[in-house]
Parts: sequence; C-alpha cells; structure tokens
Amino acid sequence: MSARFPSKLLEEAVNEFASLPGIGRKTAFRLVMHLLRRDSGEVRRFGETITRLREDVCYCSVCHGISDTAVCETCSDPSRDRSVICVVENVQDVMAVENTRQFRGLYHVLGGIISPVDGIGPSDLTIAKLEEKIREGSVKEVILALSTTMEGDTTNFYIYKRLSGYDVVITTLARGVAIGDVLEYTDEITLGQSIINRRLFSLQTGRP
Amino acid sequence: MSARFPSKLLEEAVNEFASLPGIGRKTAFRLVMHLLRRDSGEVRRFGETITRLREDVCYCSVCHGISDTAVCETCSDPSRDRSVICVVENVQDVMAVENTRQFRGLYHVLGGIISPVDGIGPSDLTIAKLEEKIREGSVKEVILALSTTMEGDTTNFYIYKRLSGYDVVITTLARGVAIGDVLEYTDEITLGQSIINRRLFSLQTGRP
Repeated sequence: MSARFPSKLLEEAVNEFASLPGIGRKTAFRLVMHLLRRDSGEVRRFGETITRLREDVCYCSVCHGISDTAVCETCSDPSRDRSVICVVENVQDVMAVENTRQFRGLYHVLGGIISPVDGIGPSDLTIAKLEEKIREGSVKEVILALSTTMEGDTTNFYIYKRLSGYDVVITTLARGVAIGDVLEYTDEITLGQSIINRRLFSLQTGRP
Repeated sequence: MSARFPSKLLEEAVNEFASLPGIGRKTAFRLVMHLLRRDSGEVRRFGETITRLREDVCYCSVCHGISDTAVCETCSDPSRDRSVICVVENVQDVMAVENTRQFRGLYHVLGGIISPVDGIGPSDLTIAKLEEKIREGSVKEVILALSTTMEGDTTNFYIYKRLSGYDVVITTLARGVAIGDVLEYTDEITLGQSIINRRLFSLQTGRP
C-alpha cells in the first residue's frame, strides 16, 4: 500500500483515517472507498459531524463529563441525590454506571487515571475540583468507581489520602466473582476477596 | 453501549463512525473519544477532508479510476503504451499493479465485478466503455487482471465473449504457486494449473 495514489484527495482521506488508533492503511483505504460509494449528502454530514464534535463539544462545569450544555442533564436533574458522588475515569464509565440504573447520585469525571508510564499525574486530572466539592461540606459519600488495575488502585489510594481529612465516607465498588463467571476460572485474588467479603445468602441477591 | 448519551453531538459522531463497515459501536466510541483529545485544527481538517473527498473527487474519463483531474496522470502520460489495456476491478488494483513496476500500458477500471448475489450485472460496470475503446482498433492486447474468485472468473468470461469478435489478443494473469508459498499447503487446483503451465527453468526467474 506504499504505492503512489492516483488522487491527492484520496491519499489525504486515507492518511486521515489511518491516523486513528487501531486503523491501519488497508482498513483506512477500505473505509474511504466505502465513503466514495455512499450518498454525497450522507458523507457531507459525516464530515460536518466530526468538525462540529470537536468545536462545539462542552464539558459540564460540575461533573466535567461531556455535555451539550454548560451543566449536563444529570447534574441539573433535581431528582438526583447531591450527597453522593461517584468518581469515574471517563464519560464511558458514566454511561456504564447509568446503564445499571442502580445509582441516583452525581458523578465526577476525572478525565483519566494516574499513570506515570503515560506521564499522567494527579494535576492532569480533576482531583482538585473534587476536593473543592468535598470542602463545601454537603457531600456525605464518595464512591471510587475506577478500573481494578494498578493505575486504578493508585488513583484510588491518592484520592483516599487527599480526602481523608474531610468528613466524608469513602467507598469503593464491591470486588467479587462476576455474574456468569465460572468459579474454576476466576483468578485467586478476586476469589480470595469474595470469600473475605462474603455476605448473608438471600434470594433477592444475584441478578437484578 | 445502549445507554443514553450525555451529549447529542457525541451520539451523532458515534453513530456516524459505527455506520462504517467493520466498525462496531465500541470501536466508534473509542475513535470519537480519541478525536476529542486531538488538536482542534487536526480534527477540523479530518472532517473537511471527508467532505471534500466525496464532493470533489473525479473519475478519469479514460480509465474510470479515481483522479483529481478529468484525465488521470497515468492516462495522460505520453510514455505509456496505449496498445495494451489492463482490466481491473477497482483503483486499489490499479495501485497494486503499478506497485509491481512491470506494466507500462493503460488501465481500465470496471468499478466492480459481476456478482448476481450482490445484484451487480454487466451494465453496472464500465464494460460497454471498454468495448468502445476496443472498437476504435488501436488496442492490441487486453489483460484481464481480476481476482481468481468465481465472480472474477464470471466477469473474465463475460468480457472474453463480448470482445471475441474484435481483432484483439485477450490475456489473463498467470496462475501458479505464489512466491514464498509452501508447496504442501498450496491448493490442488493452483498446483495443478502450475504443472500444466510449467516453464523452462531459468536463473532469471523467481524474485525480481
């Protein structure tokens, strides 16, 4: 695919697609050829959506998640419990938690996770803003809902230390055997944690 | 990923990417999040390139390949041999043949391949235009360079029949064991063809 392109326009479009993560030059070419076969109005809309996305997108001034307005729908919803804040890495995680329909509090989007390897430190995240919210005094509980990776654990620990001087309960997601998991193939740390944190059997538990 | 999106703009961009072949909703989301982290000028250029691609792209009036001008560079190059036409399915194939640096004639891009399953018949392709070129009389050889699939063979056969009344030599790509192929794993039809079409051994053959 290192050949000279018959058209500069074509080459530019292939280069743009190939600059996306996980998209190689062959795939980029296939996508561009697909767009050339599509209706011209559809392709114009595609291009304009991308341009608008980057230019018009807002970040909610309360939770720092992506929003179309200065304060997002969730943060401006009066029925949400303002005394509980769920701390997540990004907007995908907000959507994942919202999907469970088990949480009625507010969110705080960190915008990433502490990762020295990638050069992301606490000051690159919205941790100071989170501390400000807690300092106000109306928040009773902070739920740390980060990935169970080393970076997630590091970030959890950092936030825990930073908020430990305030009058707020800090919780984290339950660790245990996932629903649908076969016990034999569950890793020993998860299984060990799920034995330590075992709870009284009840017919109401399990799948919602 | 069926969750309500926190932003309409975000949702639209995800939908656009997910409409591309081979890109699911999770990948689309990841690509959009990547664009949001990119420089705003870069993302604008991405969007504009896509819009321009579809609106400004030309098809060469001679070979019907993609071009920036009314007649493409290859077709307007006076050093190319106008008596030989290589018939290919699409512009990727033009690039593949050009890459070999073994062909100095002109191309004819069919714009597809006869495929009853996909509803593509001879009239959807540029076969009539090819016949016009041959009718003019200056073309001495037509090389059929289509894929060795059933659709490719059908298209080869159709073009062969259609051009058989004209004074033109019709050739096709050599079939044989590919360079680097292990004989044990070469399919029997290819291997059989390569025995029937065996040629005198020469130290010049093999890798270019």
